[in-house]
Amino acid sequence: MPPEYTITRRVEFAETDMAGIAHFTNFFRWMEEAEHAFFRSLGHSVSETRCGEDIGWPRLSASCEYLKPARFEDVLEVRMRVQEKGRKSLTLAFSFQKNGEEIARGQLVTVCCRCSPGRPLEAIPIPDEIRSKIDRR
Amino acid sequence: MPPEYTITRRVEFAETDMAGIAHFTNFFRWMEEAEHAFFRSLGHSVSETRCGEDIGWPRLSASCEYLKPARFEDVLEVRMRVQEKGRKSLTLAFSFQKNGEEIARGQLVTVCCRCSPGRPLEAIPIPDEIRSKIDRR
Amino acid sequence: MPPEYTITRRVEFAETDMAGIAHFTNFFRWMEEAEHAFFRSLGHSVSETRCGEDIGWPRLSASCEYLKPARFEDVLEVRMRVQEKGRKSLTLAFSFQKNGEEIARGQLVTVCCRCSPGRPLEAIPIPDEIRSKIDRR
Amino acid sequence: MPPEYTITRRVEFAETDMAGIAHFTNFFRWMEEAEHAFFRSLGHSVSETRCGEDIGWPRLSASCEYLKPARFEDVLEVRMRVQEKGRKSLTLAFSFQKNGEEIARGQLVTVCCRCSPGRPLEAIPIPDEIRSKIDRR
Repeated sequence: MPPEYTITRRVEFAETDMAGIAHFTNFFRWMEEAEHAFFRSLGHSVSETRCGEDIGWPRLSASCEYLKPARFEDVLEVRMRVQEKGRKSLTLAFSFQKNGEEIARGQLVTVCCRCSPGRPLEAIPIPDEIRSKIDRR
Repeated sequence: MPPEYTITRRVEFAETDMAGIAHFTNFFRWMEEAEHAFFRSLGHSVSETRCGEDIGWPRLSASCEYLKPARFEDVLEVRMRVQEKGRKSLTLAFSFQKNGEEIARGQLVTVCCRCSPGRPLEAIPIPDEIRSKIDRR
Repeated sequence: MPPEYTITRRVEFAETDMAGIAHFTNFFRWMEEAEHAFFRSLGHSVSETRCGEDIGWPRLSASCEYLKPARFEDVLEVRMRVQEKGRKSLTLAFSFQKNGEEIARGQLVTVCCRCSPGRPLEAIPIPDEIRSKIDRR
Repeated sequence: MPPEYTITRRVEFAETDMAGIAHFTNFFRWMEEAEHAFFRSLGHSVSETRCGEDIGWPRLSASCEYLKPARFEDVLEVRMRVQEKGRKSLTLAFSFQKNGEEIARGQLVTVCCRCSPGRPLEAIPIPDEIRSKIDRR
């Protein structure tokens, strides 16, 4: 069974636009918030120093399909699962639920990188410790 | 030849994150800025009242692939073209260029809607006037 | 004793900037989140329809003093109190705490308004029901 | 005569909220955009490495008074001047104009800092080169 993780998130006023609904870009922020909470649930952070090197997880791609709008003060469930685990990358699938109904679904593909200041990002294998914790969830 | 439109956009400080690069969600805001400038170039706005009704363009989907990072004060070219013109929807393709090199590409699918306050969004055919102006570009 | 209200808020990655700290504008979003949670705690919303009219609370002023930076994944306490209650306006004072230490303090002055679409905002007396609930907290 | 600098900025859709006006926090982003354009006009950046050290300009305080709302596609003039030049800090005053009418005014107090990764921010005297360029404007 693939590892799953869920957060609950209320739509804030600053996230609405003049059409009276949550601006579509916020769904990507909410995916990221779920992803980062998932890392914390493993005892890790997306921003860590390991063996003296900064590790980060920039995105290869991001996508979202919008089924119904989200509105101010709606409480959303953001359900995340690890859809694919590559050697250096993770594919994360998201479902947004409002009152038990799916209103959007999305995907992030993210790659483990060495992020030394002043040097280009360099993809590296996902550290074993993180990999095994994802498997055990 | 498909209609094309280009804007130039500098990466602002508030758009960077602690990894020192533009946060990935901003590419979606930049796509939208190009789309809205395109509508203005046609003499229209994405937010109009026509025959007493508010017209809007919510998104059906949004996606982006990231090839290279964008950094503070980088000047990006956001190139947009109308990839597909349906009866009620538009598919817009975007290419982000930095110094002549593509650093990201994206897509928005957007649907023409009647947006009356307090009523659900309802998809409607793209008004003829807008449709013909897109064709003539 | 003045009415007080506190929320807890974790600093998200998208809220950091390339200096590695939370971008200063986020403190204003966090003030607003606390204010809106306070309204909900009274059984109200900052965006309501009363007697067929939309009521809103635009800002007259906003300010913040920054004492120490907030960083990714910091858990902040946002403490709010109603500092002054005018006939049409509220002055809200905020203190941001990290591990029991104040890292910032701010203020919002907000005015109760009739917000009819297409008409200018018009300040109105704070509805009695809201006023008395604020007093009773 | 105090040094002045002006940028022009169109209100974007993502900057509006469900009240149909620009969210109040955006005025702080626009102040920052004017400030950073001012630094560029001096041949500098708010984020520089000098003598091997990263220099940054975190905020001591930020404030804004709101006179009239800004709306989608409004074109605003953001006028900035250096109100006070301390040994380590700058006080910047801003006026927001729409069609020649002031709709908001604001202030940022910002302090020149050494920003070494992993070390606390440390206030330092404004480098002479920047100081003299500000004077000569």
